[in-house]
Amino acid sequence: MIATTDALVEGNHWRTDTMSWADVGWRAIAANVSDIAAMGARPRFALVALTLGTSLTPDALDCLVEGMAEACRAHEVRIAGGDTIRGRETNIAVTLLGEAASTSGDGLLLRSAARVGDAVAVSGHPGASASGLALIEARRATEAGVEPLLEAHRRPRARVALGRAAVEAAVRCAIDVSDGLLQDLGHIAERSGAGIEVDLDALPLHPAAIAALGLEAAREHALGGGEDYELALCGPAGALARLATAELPVTVIGRVIEAHRGEAWALASDGTRHIPAREGWDQLATKSPEA
Amino acid sequence: MIATTDALVEGNHWRTDTMSWADVGWRAIAANVSDIAAMGARPRFALVALTLGTSLTPDALDCLVEGMAEACRAHEVRIAGGDTIRGRETNIAVTLLGEAASTSGDGLLLRSAARVGDAVAVSGHPGASASGLALIEARRATEAGVEPLLEAHRRPRARVALGRAAVEAAVRCAIDVSDGLLQDLGHIAERSGAGIEVDLDALPLHPAAIAALGLEAAREHALGGGEDYELALCGPAGALARLATAELPVTVIGRVIEAHRGEAWALASDGTRHIPAREGWDQLATKSPEA
Repeated sequence: MIATTDALVEGNHWRTDTMSWADVGWRAIAANVSDIAAMGARPRFALVALTLGTSLTPDALDCLVEGMAEACRAHEVRIAGGDTIRGRETNIAVTLLGEAASTSGDGLLLRSAARVGDAVAVSGHPGASASGLALIEARRATEAGVEPLLEAHRRPRARVALGRAAVEAAVRCAIDVSDGLLQDLGHIAERSGAGIEVDLDALPLHPAAIAALGLEAAREHALGGGEDYELALCGPAGALARLATAELPVTVIGRVIEAHRGEAWALASDGTRHIPAREGWDQLATKSPEA
Repeated sequence: MIATTDALVEGNHWRTDTMSWADVGWRAIAANVSDIAAMGARPRFALVALTLGTSLTPDALDCLVEGMAEACRAHEVRIAGGDTIRGRETNIAVTLLGEAASTSGDGLLLRSAARVGDAVAVSGHPGASASGLALIEARRATEAGVEPLLEAHRRPRARVALGRAAVEAAVRCAIDVSDGLLQDLGHIAERSGAGIEVDLDALPLHPAAIAALGLEAAREHALGGGEDYELALCGPAGALARLATAELPVTVIGRVIEAHRGEAWALASDGTRHIPAREGWDQLATKSPEA
């Protein structure tokens, strides 16, 4: 049994002008499912401690709960309990319980299991969610072709099947890209005592993000944008490439090296180190789902 | 595996003028341990989603965390993970994972398992916590003899050993007295489809509460005061009485009857129904720890 907990608070983790209450509810569940997915485990039960803020209308509450229910259905999770109280600001603390194939080191994906010589891969199109948010903030959400980016922001899917396939393929190391690709790879680098080098040109940018925002902005969102819930994985290049499916690409983007232990960075094609415009999200997060 | 979640929010569940931050931390853990104890299970791991409010100083945070750690040590619980974020108001959502001897109906205490003819018992001295709070609010906390009541308010102990002993004695029904004795017995009455009658004169009032506040107030606190974390149990009178230990009295206070299904009430010695001054706490609580 694996357990993880994550709280979202009004004003800090969502803005009601860019997200519907249903999307907030979806995210509260998906963020926790993603932590379980990143360990290669199967999500089972959610417990929800919901603080109803003074600004939360009954209609908004209905939407919030419906969004949570939709995310639970999409990720095959059952809400098994909870506590509802009143406060000044709305706060959603979700605990998710999951099942690992085995709780020995072999049965879980860990942040600490990257090894020098491993390839580094990422699923899907990192930066899609941040690109979607940028378009919403710029009031460009109704433009043609941007729908996949809006969907990535509003209804991110946790990569449960990928995490489980990785465990079966004897991959040992993963993290979910929730704070930004470089920052999250930095967590692996720290925990594994190695350096992680990403090739800027290898990033699987979303075509819609390049089309709508240009290559530079799409890259910055891929390196520093949070809340994608894609998985970044370290392991043998062949094993990683074989994890790709028709629905979800898995792209090798870099390598684990001995130098610069504890750091993750991106290299431009001319071999210079790329300085990201934004490093990622700092939520004062001390997530430790590896319980 | 049993899981329960409970959130405490500043202003609603505690007041910093009557409780120290360490006591708040203690309570956040003890309230959840109590839910596990009331099921006859053994608490094991806690996950804490902590929202740091703007008024929480670094010193207050240290005290809060130390109080949580003390409660974990006292109840043999390990903090296995968490999430720390910033918000406007401090919010502590704790999820507790426990182990049941068995998750079949026989291995758990349930609110729904009271049967007509059962005796009703309560551990310890219900109302001690509310009496302690009343004394603190009346600025009488330094009076002689009130220390046990203050301790009951500030450092309530969850009744883990009692819950487990009850399961072993084939008792099937319990609840923790967190909202007030009559209200919590009412939950059993509703879930079990029976009536619960309490003898006013049988209540095991704390002698210090009678001495400091008088019989009437001590009774009201026993019937309607929350946060005692004593267990109320339904089962054969003999089995219940044998649960008492040198440290913790278990007193038969009433019976489960067929009439007035879904209600719990107290009878005065003249046979009239006692109208409590206060029914107990309504925290808008939809606790459902029976996951």
